[in-house]
Amino acid sequence: MISKQKIKFITSLRHNKYRLKYNSFIAEGHHVVNDFINSHFEVTSVFATKSWINSNYKSTLFNKSQIVQIVTNQEMAQISCLKSPSNVLAVISRLKSNFDYSSISHSLIALDGISDPGNLGTIIRTADWFGVKQIFLSQDCVDVFNPKVVQATMGSLSRVHICKLSLKDFLLNLKELKYISYGACLSGTSIYSVKTETKSVFVFGSESHGISSEVSQILDHKILIPGKNQDVDSLNVSVAFGIILSEFV
Amino acid sequence: MISKQKIKFITSLRHNKYRLKYNSFIAEGHHVVNDFINSHFEVTSVFATKSWINSNYKSTLFNKSQIVQIVTNQEMAQISCLKSPSNVLAVISRLKSNFDYSSISHSLIALDGISDPGNLGTIIRTADWFGVKQIFLSQDCVDVFNPKVVQATMGSLSRVHICKLSLKDFLLNLKELKYISYGACLSGTSIYSVKTETKSVFVFGSESHGISSEVSQILDHKILIPGKNQDVDSLNVSVAFGIILSEFV
Repeated sequence: MISKQKIKFITSLRHNKYRLKYNSFIAEGHHVVNDFINSHFEVTSVFATKSWINSNYKSTLFNKSQIVQIVTNQEMAQISCLKSPSNVLAVISRLKSNFDYSSISHSLIALDGISDPGNLGTIIRTADWFGVKQIFLSQDCVDVFNPKVVQATMGSLSRVHICKLSLKDFLLNLKELKYISYGACLSGTSIYSVKTETKSVFVFGSESHGISSEVSQILDHKILIPGKNQDVDSLNVSVAFGIILSEFV
Repeated sequence: MISKQKIKFITSLRHNKYRLKYNSFIAEGHHVVNDFINSHFEVTSVFATKSWINSNYKSTLFNKSQIVQIVTNQEMAQISCLKSPSNVLAVISRLKSNFDYSSISHSLIALDGISDPGNLGTIIRTADWFGVKQIFLSQDCVDVFNPKVVQATMGSLSRVHICKLSLKDFLLNLKELKYISYGACLSGTSIYSVKTETKSVFVFGSESHGISSEVSQILDHKILIPGKNQDVDSLNVSVAFGIILSEFV
Protein backbone atom coordinates (compact mmCIF):
# COMPACT_ATOMS: atom_id res chain seq x y z
CA MET A 1 0.00 0.00 0.00
CA ILE A 2 1.43 3.34 -1.08
CA SER A 3 0.50 6.45 0.91
CA LYS A 4 -1.38 9.37 -0.62
CA GLN A 5 1.54 11.59 0.31
CA LYS A 6 3.95 9.44 -1.71
CA ILE A 7 1.64 9.40 -4.71
CA LYS A 8 1.47 13.18 -4.50
CA PHE A 9 5.27 13.43 -4.28
CA ILE A 10 5.86 11.14 -7.26
CA THR A 11 3.26 12.77 -9.50
CA SER A 12 4.62 16.21 -8.57
CA LEU A 13 7.88 15.20 -10.28
CA ARG A 14 6.10 15.49 -13.65
CA HIS A 15 6.62 19.24 -13.22
CA ASN A 16 9.99 20.94 -13.46
CA LYS A 17 9.24 23.13 -10.43
CA TYR A 18 9.05 20.08 -8.16
CA ARG A 19 11.92 18.27 -9.86
CA LEU A 20 14.05 21.26 -8.88
CA LYS A 21 12.52 21.53 -5.40
CA TYR A 22 13.10 17.86 -4.53
CA ASN A 23 16.21 17.51 -6.72
CA SER A 24 14.68 14.32 -8.13
CA PHE A 25 13.12 12.86 -11.25
CA ILE A 26 11.39 9.62 -12.26
CA ALA A 27 12.23 6.85 -14.70
CA GLU A 28 10.03 3.92 -15.69
CA GLY A 29 10.31 0.45 -17.14
CA HIS A 30 12.66 -2.45 -16.49
CA HIS A 31 15.29 -1.47 -19.04
CA VAL A 32 15.46 2.24 -18.18
CA VAL A 33 15.36 1.74 -14.38
CA ASN A 34 18.06 -0.95 -14.57
CA ASP A 35 20.30 1.35 -16.59
CA PHE A 36 20.00 4.03 -13.89
CA ILE A 37 20.61 1.52 -11.06
CA ASN A 38 23.83 0.47 -12.81
CA SER A 39 24.93 4.07 -13.40
CA HIS A 40 26.55 6.87 -11.38
CA PHE A 41 23.06 8.25 -10.61
CA GLU A 42 21.62 7.76 -7.12
CA VAL A 43 18.34 5.82 -7.30
CA THR A 44 16.60 6.80 -4.06
CA SER A 45 13.48 4.65 -4.22
CA VAL A 46 11.93 1.98 -6.42
CA PHE A 47 8.23 1.13 -6.77
CA ALA A 48 7.54 -2.23 -8.39
CA THR A 49 4.78 -4.77 -8.83
CA LYS A 50 5.06 -8.18 -7.18
CA SER A 51 5.76 -9.84 -10.52
CA TRP A 52 8.73 -7.54 -11.20
CA ILE A 53 10.13 -8.10 -7.68
CA ASN A 54 9.84 -11.88 -8.06
CA SER A 55 11.72 -12.04 -11.33
CA ASN A 56 14.22 -9.19 -10.88
CA TYR A 57 14.96 -8.37 -7.28
CA LYS A 58 17.81 -10.83 -6.85
CA SER A 59 19.49 -9.99 -10.14
CA THR A 60 19.31 -6.22 -9.66
CA LEU A 61 22.19 -4.42 -7.97
CA PHE A 62 20.32 -2.64 -5.22
CA ASN A 63 22.18 -1.10 -2.32
CA LYS A 64 20.93 -0.69 1.23
CA SER A 65 19.78 2.88 0.84
CA GLN A 66 17.36 1.98 -1.93
CA ILE A 67 13.90 1.30 -0.60
CA VAL A 68 11.96 -1.05 -2.85
CA GLN A 69 8.23 -0.89 -2.30
CA ILE A 70 5.66 -3.29 -3.73
CA VAL A 71 2.71 -1.61 -5.45
CA THR A 72 -0.41 -2.99 -7.10
CA ASN A 73 -1.11 -2.45 -10.82
CA GLN A 74 -3.74 0.12 -9.83
CA GLU A 75 -1.24 2.03 -7.71
CA MET A 76 1.33 1.86 -10.52
CA ALA A 77 -1.25 3.37 -12.89
CA GLN A 78 -1.66 6.25 -10.42
CA ILE A 79 2.05 7.11 -10.20
CA SER A 80 3.05 6.31 -13.80
CA CYS A 81 3.32 8.92 -16.57
CA LEU A 82 2.91 6.24 -19.22
CA LYS A 83 -0.30 5.35 -21.02
CA SER A 84 0.62 1.68 -20.55
CA PRO A 85 2.35 1.66 -17.15
CA SER A 86 5.29 -0.72 -16.78
CA ASN A 87 5.94 -2.73 -13.63
CA VAL A 88 8.73 -0.65 -12.14
CA LEU A 89 9.24 3.06 -11.46
CA ALA A 90 12.25 4.70 -9.81
CA VAL A 91 12.81 8.04 -8.12
CA ILE A 92 16.33 9.25 -8.89
CA SER A 93 18.46 12.15 -7.68
CA ARG A 94 19.31 14.81 -10.23
CA LEU A 95 23.01 15.29 -10.80
CA LYS A 96 24.67 18.65 -10.90
CA SER A 97 25.79 19.33 -14.43
CA ASN A 98 29.25 20.67 -13.71
CA PHE A 99 32.19 19.92 -15.95
CA ASP A 100 35.64 21.25 -16.52
CA TYR A 101 37.12 22.08 -19.86
CA SER A 102 40.10 19.78 -19.30
CA SER A 103 37.91 16.67 -19.51
CA ILE A 104 36.04 17.40 -22.75
CA SER A 105 36.46 15.32 -25.88
CA HIS A 106 37.46 16.40 -29.38
CA SER A 107 34.04 16.03 -31.02
CA LEU A 108 31.38 17.97 -29.13
CA ILE A 109 27.62 18.34 -29.47
CA ALA A 110 25.66 21.46 -28.50
CA LEU A 111 21.88 21.93 -28.67
CA ASP A 112 20.31 25.37 -28.93
CA GLY A 113 16.70 25.70 -27.78
CA ILE A 114 15.42 22.14 -28.39
CA SER A 115 11.90 22.24 -26.98
CA ASP A 116 10.32 18.88 -27.83
CA PRO A 117 10.95 16.22 -25.13
CA GLY A 118 10.73 13.37 -27.65
CA ASN A 119 13.34 15.00 -29.88
CA LEU A 120 15.73 15.66 -26.99
CA GLY A 121 15.36 12.07 -25.75
CA THR A 122 15.95 10.63 -29.23
CA ILE A 123 19.01 12.87 -29.67
CA ILE A 124 20.51 11.62 -26.38
CA ARG A 125 19.81 7.99 -27.39
CA THR A 126 21.43 8.54 -30.81
CA ALA A 127 24.46 10.27 -29.25
CA ASP A 128 24.91 7.30 -26.89
CA TRP A 129 24.77 4.91 -29.89
CA PHE A 130 27.63 6.81 -31.54
CA GLY A 131 29.67 6.88 -28.31
CA VAL A 132 29.20 10.59 -27.50
CA LYS A 133 29.74 11.06 -23.75
CA GLN A 134 28.66 14.67 -23.24
CA ILE A 135 25.99 16.97 -24.68
CA PHE A 136 25.85 20.70 -24.01
CA LEU A 137 22.44 22.38 -23.86
CA SER A 138 21.42 26.03 -23.97
CA GLN A 139 19.44 27.21 -20.95
CA ASP A 140 16.17 27.34 -22.92
CA CYS A 141 16.21 23.65 -23.92
CA VAL A 142 13.44 21.51 -22.41
CA ASP A 143 14.35 20.04 -18.99
CA VAL A 144 16.35 16.86 -19.51
CA PHE A 145 14.67 15.22 -16.49
CA ASN A 146 11.17 15.74 -17.96
CA PRO A 147 9.60 12.22 -17.85
CA LYS A 148 9.07 12.21 -21.64
CA VAL A 149 12.76 12.95 -22.22
CA VAL A 150 13.84 10.27 -19.73
CA GLN A 151 11.65 7.64 -21.42
CA ALA A 152 12.66 8.61 -24.99
CA THR A 153 16.36 8.21 -24.11
CA MET A 154 15.67 4.49 -23.43
CA GLY A 155 18.23 4.49 -20.61
CA SER A 156 20.88 6.52 -22.44
CA LEU A 157 20.43 9.40 -20.02
CA SER A 158 22.14 7.22 -17.42
CA ARG A 159 25.31 7.23 -19.57
CA VAL A 160 25.46 10.53 -21.48
CA HIS A 161 26.52 13.51 -19.39
CA ILE A 162 24.22 16.50 -19.98
CA CYS A 163 25.33 20.01 -19.17
CA LYS A 164 23.11 23.11 -19.35
CA LEU A 165 24.97 26.39 -19.75
CA SER A 166 25.16 29.67 -21.59
CA LEU A 167 25.78 28.34 -25.08
CA LYS A 168 27.20 31.62 -26.31
CA ASP A 169 29.84 31.78 -23.55
CA PHE A 170 30.60 28.07 -23.99
CA LEU A 171 31.22 28.44 -27.73
CA LEU A 172 33.39 31.53 -27.15
CA ASN A 173 35.48 29.56 -24.63
CA LEU A 174 35.79 26.67 -27.10
CA LYS A 175 37.01 29.12 -29.77
CA GLU A 176 39.92 30.02 -27.50
CA LEU A 177 40.66 26.31 -27.13
CA LYS A 178 40.92 26.11 -30.98
CA TYR A 179 37.62 24.28 -31.51
CA ILE A 180 35.91 24.90 -34.86
CA SER A 181 32.10 25.17 -34.71
CA TYR A 182 29.68 23.79 -37.31
CA GLY A 183 26.00 24.74 -37.19
CA ALA A 184 23.33 22.55 -38.83
CA CYS A 185 21.38 25.01 -40.99
CA LEU A 186 19.15 25.17 -44.05
CA SER A 187 21.92 26.88 -46.01
CA GLY A 188 25.68 26.46 -46.04
CA THR A 189 28.15 23.82 -47.18
CA SER A 190 26.87 20.29 -47.89
CA ILE A 191 27.77 17.82 -45.15
CA TYR A 192 29.05 15.50 -47.88
CA SER A 193 31.78 17.96 -48.92
CA VAL A 194 32.77 19.52 -45.56
CA LYS A 195 36.04 18.35 -44.01
CA THR A 196 35.97 18.87 -40.27
CA GLU A 197 38.86 19.76 -37.97
CA THR A 198 40.07 17.48 -35.17
CA LYS A 199 38.55 19.71 -32.49
CA SER A 200 34.97 20.26 -33.62
CA VAL A 201 31.68 21.29 -32.05
CA PHE A 202 28.42 20.57 -33.88
CA VAL A 203 25.49 22.85 -33.05
CA PHE A 204 21.81 22.00 -33.63
CA GLY A 205 18.99 24.53 -33.34
CA SER A 206 15.37 24.44 -32.27
CA GLU A 207 12.61 22.66 -34.20
CA SER A 208 10.82 25.85 -35.23
CA HIS A 209 13.47 28.59 -35.31
CA GLY A 210 16.77 26.82 -35.93
CA ILE A 211 19.93 28.16 -34.30
CA SER A 212 19.40 31.45 -32.43
CA SER A 213 20.93 34.58 -33.95
CA GLU A 214 23.11 35.05 -30.85
CA VAL A 215 24.73 31.64 -31.39
CA SER A 216 24.61 31.83 -35.19
CA GLN A 217 26.95 34.86 -35.16
CA ILE A 218 29.69 32.88 -33.41
CA LEU A 219 29.62 29.83 -35.72
CA ASP A 220 32.67 29.19 -37.90
CA HIS A 221 30.75 27.18 -40.53
CA LYS A 222 27.16 26.53 -41.52
CA ILE A 223 26.49 23.06 -42.85
CA LEU A 224 23.40 21.53 -44.42
CA ILE A 225 22.03 18.14 -45.38
CA PRO A 226 21.21 18.68 -49.04
CA GLY A 227 17.60 17.83 -49.90
CA LYS A 228 16.24 16.81 -53.29
CA ASN A 229 12.81 18.37 -52.85
CA GLN A 230 12.34 22.15 -52.64
CA ASP A 231 8.80 21.69 -51.26
CA VAL A 232 10.06 20.24 -47.98
CA ASP A 233 10.85 22.88 -45.36
CA SER A 234 13.20 20.94 -43.14
CA LEU A 235 14.13 17.64 -41.57
CA ASN A 236 13.13 16.64 -38.05
CA VAL A 237 16.00 17.77 -35.77
CA SER A 238 16.62 14.31 -34.29
CA VAL A 239 16.86 12.81 -37.81
CA ALA A 240 19.22 15.61 -38.92
CA PHE A 241 21.25 14.96 -35.75
CA GLY A 242 21.55 11.25 -36.58
CA ILE A 243 22.62 11.92 -40.17
CA ILE A 244 25.29 14.45 -39.14
CA LEU A 245 26.62 12.23 -36.33
CA SER A 246 26.78 9.29 -38.70
CA GLU A 247 28.76 11.41 -41.15
CA PHE A 248 31.28 12.94 -38.72
CA VAL A 249 31.51 11.24 -35.32
CA MET B 1 -21.71 28.10 -36.41
CA ILE B 2 -20.80 24.45 -36.94
CA SER B 3 -23.49 21.81 -36.43
CA LYS B 4 -23.23 19.08 -33.81
CA GLN B 5 -23.46 16.53 -36.59
CA LYS B 6 -20.43 17.98 -38.36
CA ILE B 7 -18.41 18.07 -35.14
CA LYS B 8 -19.32 14.43 -34.61
CA PHE B 9 -18.29 13.56 -38.18
CA ILE B 10 -14.92 15.34 -37.94
CA THR B 11 -14.00 13.93 -34.54
CA SER B 12 -15.01 10.44 -35.72
CA LEU B 13 -12.15 10.67 -38.25
CA ARG B 14 -9.68 10.29 -35.37
CA HIS B 15 -10.54 6.58 -35.56
CA ASN B 16 -9.48 4.30 -38.40
CA LYS B 17 -12.92 2.65 -38.50
CA TYR B 18 -14.56 5.93 -39.50
CA ARG B 19 -11.72 7.01 -41.79
CA LEU B 20 -12.44 3.83 -43.75
CA LYS B 21 -16.22 4.24 -43.53
CA TYR B 22 -16.21 7.83 -44.81
CA ASN B 23 -13.08 7.38 -46.98
CA SER B 24 -11.74 10.60 -45.44
CA PHE B 25 -9.11 11.94 -43.07
CA ILE B 26 -8.19 15.28 -41.49
CA ALA B 27 -5.18 17.57 -41.74
CA GLU B 28 -4.50 20.69 -39.69
CA GLY B 29 -2.47 23.88 -39.84
CA HIS B 30 -1.80 26.38 -42.60
CA HIS B 31 1.28 24.68 -44.03
CA VAL B 32 -0.10 21.11 -44.05
CA VAL B 33 -3.55 22.08 -45.35
CA ASN B 34 -2.03 24.22 -48.11
CA ASP B 35 0.20 21.34 -49.22
CA PHE B 36 -2.86 19.09 -49.57
CA ILE B 37 -4.86 21.76 -51.44
CA ASN B 38 -2.00 22.03 -53.94
CA SER B 39 -1.68 18.26 -54.30
CA HIS B 40 -3.50 15.49 -56.19
CA PHE B 41 -5.61 14.82 -53.06
CA GLU B 42 -9.23 15.96 -53.02
CA VAL B 43 -9.84 18.39 -50.14
CA THR B 44 -13.58 18.11 -49.57
CA SER B 45 -14.09 20.74 -46.87
CA VAL B 46 -12.12 23.35 -44.96
CA PHE B 47 -12.89 24.78 -41.52
CA ALA B 48 -11.06 27.98 -40.71
CA THR B 49 -11.13 30.88 -38.29
CA LYS B 50 -11.98 34.36 -39.54
CA SER B 51 -8.36 35.48 -39.22
CA TRP B 52 -7.13 32.64 -41.44
CA ILE B 53 -9.83 33.35 -44.05
CA ASN B 54 -8.94 37.05 -44.10
CA SER B 55 -5.26 36.51 -44.72
CA ASN B 56 -5.35 33.35 -46.86
CA TYR B 57 -8.58 32.84 -48.72
CA LYS B 58 -7.59 34.82 -51.81
CA SER B 59 -4.13 33.31 -52.10
CA THR B 60 -5.28 29.72 -51.66
CA LEU B 61 -6.19 27.67 -54.70
CA PHE B 62 -9.68 26.57 -53.75
CA ASN B 63 -12.01 25.08 -56.32
CA LYS B 64 -15.79 25.32 -56.34
CA SER B 65 -16.42 21.97 -54.74
CA GLN B 66 -14.50 22.95 -51.61
CA ILE B 67 -16.76 24.36 -48.94
CA VAL B 68 -14.91 26.72 -46.63
CA GLN B 69 -16.70 27.25 -43.34
CA ILE B 70 -15.80 29.88 -40.75
CA VAL B 71 -15.48 28.54 -37.20
CA THR B 72 -14.74 30.25 -33.88
CA ASN B 73 -11.63 29.41 -31.85
CA GLN B 74 -13.86 27.46 -29.46
CA GLU B 75 -15.32 25.41 -32.30
CA MET B 76 -11.84 24.80 -33.70
CA ALA B 77 -10.75 23.48 -30.30
CA GLN B 78 -13.67 21.03 -30.45
CA ILE B 79 -12.80 19.59 -33.85
CA SER B 80 -8.98 19.77 -33.60
CA CYS B 81 -6.76 16.85 -32.56
CA LEU B 82 -3.98 19.23 -31.55
CA LYS B 83 -3.23 20.45 -28.04
CA SER B 84 -2.75 23.92 -29.49
CA PRO B 85 -5.30 24.05 -32.31
CA SER B 86 -4.27 25.93 -35.44
CA ASN B 87 -6.63 28.16 -37.40
CA VAL B 88 -7.44 25.81 -40.28
CA LEU B 89 -8.53 22.17 -40.57
CA ALA B 90 -9.34 20.24 -43.74
CA VAL B 91 -11.28 17.07 -44.46
CA ILE B 92 -9.61 15.20 -47.30
CA SER B 93 -10.52 12.13 -49.36
CA ARG B 94 -8.31 9.08 -48.92
CA LEU B 95 -6.65 7.91 -52.10
CA LYS B 96 -6.58 4.31 -53.18
CA SER B 97 -3.05 3.03 -52.90
CA ASN B 98 -2.79 1.22 -56.22
CA PHE B 99 0.40 1.20 -58.23
CA ASP B 100 1.87 -0.76 -61.05
CA TYR B 101 5.35 -2.22 -61.15
CA SER B 102 6.20 -0.42 -64.40
CA SER B 103 6.19 2.97 -62.65
CA ILE B 104 8.42 2.20 -59.68
CA SER B 105 11.82 3.78 -59.20
CA HIS B 106 15.22 2.14 -58.75
CA SER B 107 15.66 2.90 -55.03
CA LEU B 108 12.70 1.67 -53.02
CA ILE B 109 11.69 1.92 -49.38
CA ALA B 110 9.61 -0.67 -47.52
CA LEU B 111 8.43 -0.51 -43.92
CA ASP B 112 7.57 -3.64 -41.95
CA GLY B 113 5.24 -3.20 -38.96
CA ILE B 114 5.97 0.43 -37.99
CA SER B 115 3.47 1.11 -35.22
CA ASP B 116 4.32 4.56 -33.85
CA PRO B 117 2.48 7.37 -35.72
CA GLY B 118 5.23 9.91 -34.95
CA ASN B 119 7.88 7.59 -36.39
CA LEU B 120 5.89 6.88 -39.56
CA GLY B 121 5.21 10.60 -40.07
CA THR B 122 8.88 11.50 -39.56
CA ILE B 123 9.94 8.73 -41.97
CA ILE B 124 7.60 10.09 -44.68
CA ARG B 125 8.91 13.63 -44.09
CA THR B 126 12.54 12.42 -44.33
CA ALA B 127 11.80 10.39 -47.48
CA ASP B 128 10.28 13.49 -49.09
CA TRP B 129 13.42 15.50 -48.18
CA PHE B 130 15.57 12.97 -50.02
CA GLY B 131 13.27 12.93 -53.06
CA VAL B 132 11.72 9.47 -52.48
CA LYS B 133 8.34 9.37 -54.25
CA GLN B 134 6.89 6.06 -52.99
CA ILE B 135 6.93 4.11 -49.73
CA PHE B 136 5.63 0.56 -49.39
CA LEU B 137 4.07 -0.47 -46.09
CA SER B 138 3.22 -3.88 -44.66
CA GLN B 139 -0.45 -4.32 -43.76
CA ASP B 140 0.29 -4.13 -40.02
CA CYS B 141 1.85 -0.66 -40.12
CA VAL B 142 -0.11 2.11 -38.34
CA ASP B 143 -2.73 3.77 -40.58
CA VAL B 144 -1.04 6.47 -42.63
CA PHE B 145 -4.12 8.73 -42.33
CA ASN B 146 -4.02 8.65 -38.52
CA PRO B 147 -4.04 12.38 -37.53
CA LYS B 148 -0.70 12.03 -35.68
CA VAL B 149 0.94 10.60 -38.81
CA VAL B 150 -0.55 13.33 -41.01
CA GLN B 151 0.74 16.08 -38.69
CA ALA B 152 4.21 14.54 -38.25
CA THR B 153 4.71 14.42 -42.05
CA MET B 154 4.45 18.24 -42.11
CA GLY B 155 2.70 18.12 -45.47
CA SER B 156 4.95 15.48 -47.04
CA LEU B 157 2.05 13.01 -47.13
CA SER B 158 0.58 15.16 -49.92
CA ARG B 159 3.63 14.37 -52.07
CA VAL B 160 4.90 10.88 -51.14
CA HIS B 161 2.80 8.04 -52.52
CA ILE B 162 2.07 5.43 -49.84
CA CYS B 163 1.08 1.89 -50.73
CA LYS B 164 -0.02 -0.78 -48.23
CA LEU B 165 0.42 -4.35 -49.41
CA SER B 166 1.63 -7.81 -48.53
CA LEU B 167 5.32 -7.02 -48.02
CA LYS B 168 6.37 -10.63 -48.53
CA ASP B 169 4.65 -10.90 -51.93
CA PHE B 170 5.94 -7.47 -52.92
CA LEU B 171 9.56 -8.38 -52.13
CA LEU B 172 9.22 -11.69 -53.98
CA ASN B 173 7.92 -9.83 -57.04
CA LEU B 174 10.81 -7.36 -56.81
CA LYS B 175 13.27 -10.26 -56.68
CA GLU B 176 11.98 -11.37 -60.07
CA LEU B 177 12.53 -7.82 -61.34
CA LYS B 178 16.19 -8.12 -60.23
CA TYR B 179 15.90 -5.84 -57.21
CA ILE B 180 18.34 -6.54 -54.36
CA SER B 181 16.88 -6.14 -50.85
CA TYR B 182 18.72 -4.67 -47.83
CA GLY B 183 17.22 -4.97 -44.35
CA ALA B 184 18.22 -2.56 -41.56
CA CYS B 185 19.15 -4.89 -38.69
CA LEU B 186 21.22 -5.03 -35.51
CA SER B 187 23.66 -7.39 -37.19
CA GLY B 188 25.01 -7.63 -40.73
CA THR B 189 27.36 -5.60 -42.91
CA SER B 190 28.19 -2.03 -41.88
CA ILE B 191 26.36 0.56 -44.00
CA TYR B 192 29.72 2.29 -44.47
CA SER B 193 31.17 -0.71 -46.33
CA VAL B 194 28.13 -1.98 -48.29
CA LYS B 195 27.99 -1.22 -52.00
CA THR B 196 24.41 -1.29 -53.20
CA GLU B 197 23.08 -2.39 -56.60
CA THR B 198 21.28 -0.04 -59.01
CA LYS B 199 17.91 -1.65 -58.28
CA SER B 200 17.66 -1.71 -54.48
CA VAL B 201 14.93 -1.95 -51.87
CA PHE B 202 15.67 -0.91 -48.28
CA VAL B 203 13.53 -2.55 -45.59
CA PHE B 204 12.99 -1.15 -42.07
CA GLY B 205 11.36 -3.12 -39.24
CA SER B 206 9.17 -2.27 -36.29
CA GLU B 207 10.33 -0.28 -33.26
CA SER B 208 10.15 -3.19 -30.86
CA HIS B 209 10.65 -6.37 -32.93
CA GLY B 210 12.62 -5.26 -36.00
CA ILE B 211 11.94 -6.93 -39.33
CA SER B 212 9.45 -9.84 -39.12
CA SER B 213 10.85 -13.35 -39.63
CA GLU B 214 8.62 -13.80 -42.70
CA VAL B 215 10.25 -10.81 -44.41
CA SER B 216 13.70 -11.44 -42.93
CA GLN B 217 13.95 -14.79 -44.73
CA ILE B 218 13.56 -13.12 -48.15
CA LEU B 219 16.21 -10.40 -47.62
CA ASP B 220 19.35 -10.54 -49.75
CA HIS B 221 21.48 -8.56 -47.28
CA LYS B 222 21.31 -7.43 -43.68
CA ILE B 223 22.92 -4.07 -43.00
CA LEU B 224 23.60 -2.24 -39.75
CA ILE B 225 24.59 1.21 -38.55
CA PRO B 226 27.63 0.39 -36.43
CA GLY B 227 27.36 1.73 -32.87
CA LYS B 228 30.21 2.56 -30.52
CA ASN B 229 28.39 1.67 -27.33
CA GLN B 230 27.41 -1.91 -26.50
CA ASP B 231 25.02 -0.70 -23.78
CA VAL B 232 22.64 0.88 -26.28
CA ASP B 233 20.02 -1.53 -27.63
CA SER B 234 19.08 0.23 -30.84
CA LEU B 235 18.51 3.50 -32.63
CA ASN B 236 15.09 5.07 -33.09
CA VAL B 237 13.77 3.74 -36.42
CA SER B 238 13.18 7.18 -37.94
CA VAL B 239 16.76 8.20 -37.08
CA ALA B 240 18.11 4.93 -38.56
CA PHE B 241 15.97 5.58 -41.64
CA GLY B 242 17.46 9.07 -42.07
CA ILE B 243 21.03 7.81 -41.70
CA ILE B 244 20.55 5.00 -44.23
CA LEU B 245 18.77 7.27 -46.74
CA SER B 246 21.52 9.85 -46.39
CA GLU B 247 24.08 7.13 -47.11
CA PHE B 248 22.41 5.48 -50.11
CA VAL B 249 19.66 7.53 -51.76
